[in-house]
Amino acid sequence: MPLLVMKFGGTSVADLDRIRNAAAKVKREVERGYDVIVIVSAMSGKTNELVGWVEQTGTFFDAREYDAVVSSGENVTAGLMALTLQEMDVPARSWQGWQVPIHTTAQHSAARFVDIPRKNLDQKFGEGFKVAVVAGFQGLAPDNRITTLGRGGSDTTAVAFAAAFQAERCDIYTDVDGIYTTDPRITSKARKLDKIAFEEMLELASLGAKVLQTRSVELAMRNRVRLRVLSSFEDTDETSGTLVCDEDEIMESKVVNGVAYSREEAKITLVTVEDRPGISAAIFAPLAEAGVNVDMIVQNISEKDYDDHPGSVTDMTFSVPVAQVERAKKAMEEARQSGAISYDELVVDTEVAKVSVVGIGMRSHAGVAARMFKALADENINIKVISTSEIKISVLIDRKYMELAVQALHDAFELHKA
Amino acid sequence: MPLLVMKFGGTSVADLDRIRNAAAKVKREVERGYDVIVIVSAMSGKTNELVGWVEQTGTFFDAREYDAVVSSGENVTAGLMALTLQEMDVPARSWQGWQVPIHTTAQHSAARFVDIPRKNLDQKFGEGFKVAVVAGFQGLAPDNRITTLGRGGSDTTAVAFAAAFQAERCDIYTDVDGIYTTDPRITSKARKLDKIAFEEMLELASLGAKVLQTRSVELAMRNRVRLRVLSSFEDTDETSGTLVCDEDEIMESKVVNGVAYSREEAKITLVTVEDRPGISAAIFAPLAEAGVNVDMIVQNISEKDYDDHPGSVTDMTFSVPVAQVERAKKAMEEARQSGAISYDELVVDTEVAKVSVVGIGMRSHAGVAARMFKALADENINIKVISTSEIKISVLIDRKYMELAVQALHDAFELHKA
Repeated sequence: MPLLVMKFGGTSVADLDRIRNAAAKVKREVERGYDVIVIVSAMSGKTNELVGWVEQTGTFFDAREYDAVVSSGENVTAGLMALTLQEMDVPARSWQGWQVPIHTTAQHSAARFVDIPRKNLDQKFGEGFKVAVVAGFQGLAPDNRITTLGRGGSDTTAVAFAAAFQAERCDIYTDVDGIYTTDPRITSKARKLDKIAFEEMLELASLGAKVLQTRSVELAMRNRVRLRVLSSFEDTDETSGTLVCDEDEIMESKVVNGVAYSREEAKITLVTVEDRPGISAAIFAPLAEAGVNVDMIVQNISEKDYDDHPGSVTDMTFSVPVAQVERAKKAMEEARQSGAISYDELVVDTEVAKVSVVGIGMRSHAGVAARMFKALADENINIKVISTSEIKISVLIDRKYMELAVQALHDAFELHKA
Repeated sequence: MPLLVMKFGGTSVADLDRIRNAAAKVKREVERGYDVIVIVSAMSGKTNELVGWVEQTGTFFDAREYDAVVSSGENVTAGLMALTLQEMDVPARSWQGWQVPIHTTAQHSAARFVDIPRKNLDQKFGEGFKVAVVAGFQGLAPDNRITTLGRGGSDTTAVAFAAAFQAERCDIYTDVDGIYTTDPRITSKARKLDKIAFEEMLELASLGAKVLQTRSVELAMRNRVRLRVLSSFEDTDETSGTLVCDEDEIMESKVVNGVAYSREEAKITLVTVEDRPGISAAIFAPLAEAGVNVDMIVQNISEKDYDDHPGSVTDMTFSVPVAQVERAKKAMEEARQSGAISYDELVVDTEVAKVSVVGIGMRSHAGVAARMFKALADENINIKVISTSEIKISVLIDRKYMELAVQALHDAFELHKA
């Protein structure tokens, strides 16, 4: 029997009407001949309510208890979804993580999958159950305590089940109808993509397109799980949404497939850093220890020579989320006081944003960077930092130009055209 | 290490402040040298919310899914209580039913305890944990699915743990400060009892004093678990509340210790029933099958002789909850149509209430009934049905006299005096 995994996020199961709507989509796939594993999130708002209560208990809380409390939201939805399916004459039952059992590591609140044995679910499918409704976002640690996977873990649960059960596809139902060339709120020319390669989706996800969690895309890519992103709130069929798949499945790709952005960036420059082997490690190790997510890094290979800096010196620039600026400053000042690093000044610019173009076609096409830089120059947008990978080019610019830059790049690469 | 079981109901854990208040009571017992098993209910209102959702899914729902959904409320409280205790430097952890594991029968939504193995909790107590916070009301069926015990199951969970772990006592914290001689809302002369015998408590619980579930008192009596009922909302010490215990622990008991009432009663009379062997079974079997809870039964041993009833005939009177009158009428009419029973008329009086006096001292004291009937007669209250057991006398009266009857009986047996 072919098998599908269908995942419904919090807004898709926010109340009983929406659960019924989602269940109708599941029933349709059963009628098409599939066995279905449904992965559900908590009803929207419920996880926040539970997290709020845990946070009220104290500042430093036991992650094992956090997990025990917070995982209950998904259990509720799983039961309600199974009941709703039964009411529609679809043989279904709910599964909590420990019942499957979904074996994870013991890293509470950030657990990783170890194994999802097929035995129990396969047995029920064999007995005539058509649907297994599994509570997402949770698992079981080796010591028999409940774990959670961290926020967005339900997407990852869906992909992990699709991999374990060799599903034909993993359909992620959400509140948008697919992956767009860019954020439609920024330009009405944004166009829904029929297909996108895993690598492109990864770059788009981590660059700020929040439809799919990076981790779930990584897991899908590693296990070659075909992901489809589609809307819970529209009539959908086999061609709806966007398919995230291996690039081999995409016949002809444009050079650039998407423009992503990240608004709340900050640029930090350490002025006049001693330029010696090991200096990068000396700077970034304390930042990593402080939990600062450093993104772009640029070292100006200068040969400044000041009276008080007899050796060669350089400036080091990096970007961090705005929310982590204070933490980054503290880590740098402590490193300076300890003598691990030296710098004359730490300059912070919290008014920057990141804009990126992404496309697997870049690998075989030159001139993408030049075209990008020209489009920005034509709008008089100054580029502050540049960073490139095989399939993306990112720039830091003044935040006030962010929307303008996205629109200009979307036009320059003609992303409105299919 | 001596061990206590402490149970907190829904209003006692309704929010984080109340959970902190409850945790402080637990901490005090730990400081006195006890290991503690805490049994928690869902935060008040949560179970109703969950039940409401389940009921919205359809009329005939799968009790297994109902249990999976509804049990989540207790899991949330258990985690929050463990976190709150940790914050107070009390080594605690939460336990869901399946983790203990609490083995029950497979009767979903009305499961019964089979076994509570001590191994897992004992091991944690051995490792230095002082408190095990256990989610009440739930258990694990033989097929690894979650069960619930039915409403009020958290009291029963507490007693079952107290029995399994040979607890010194099982303290039931609730929103009243003990068991009273009668409902203080009916007479301000109602007096809190220091001690009450299991048998008396059983009669009071089933007669309408809603502090403790009948089932939990039965279980306590069978296992000789000393129960203490006391308030979550007051400062309490070892002498607070009411101890429900074996009658051997009660030095001297009054003849009557309580006056109970039940407001929503109905009296049904089958007029001119054929008086033959087996007629009672023929009447009450269909009522039982229809799920009607018949309470008092009176058969008037009459020798009516009508032309159309050549044999001996009688009238049969019984009481049922008002809410079950329609169901009872339907069952009787069907039985008549099938020819299983015959009667001329079915008379319903939905305006009655039951008032009872209870006391183990009755066993050795004559004249209690006479004293009761005189007290009612003095108030011109007509008795419609009488029923007696070894330690209680119950009467059905017009509902409008119920409060008056309770007050008169409380005075007549001098229950305001210690």
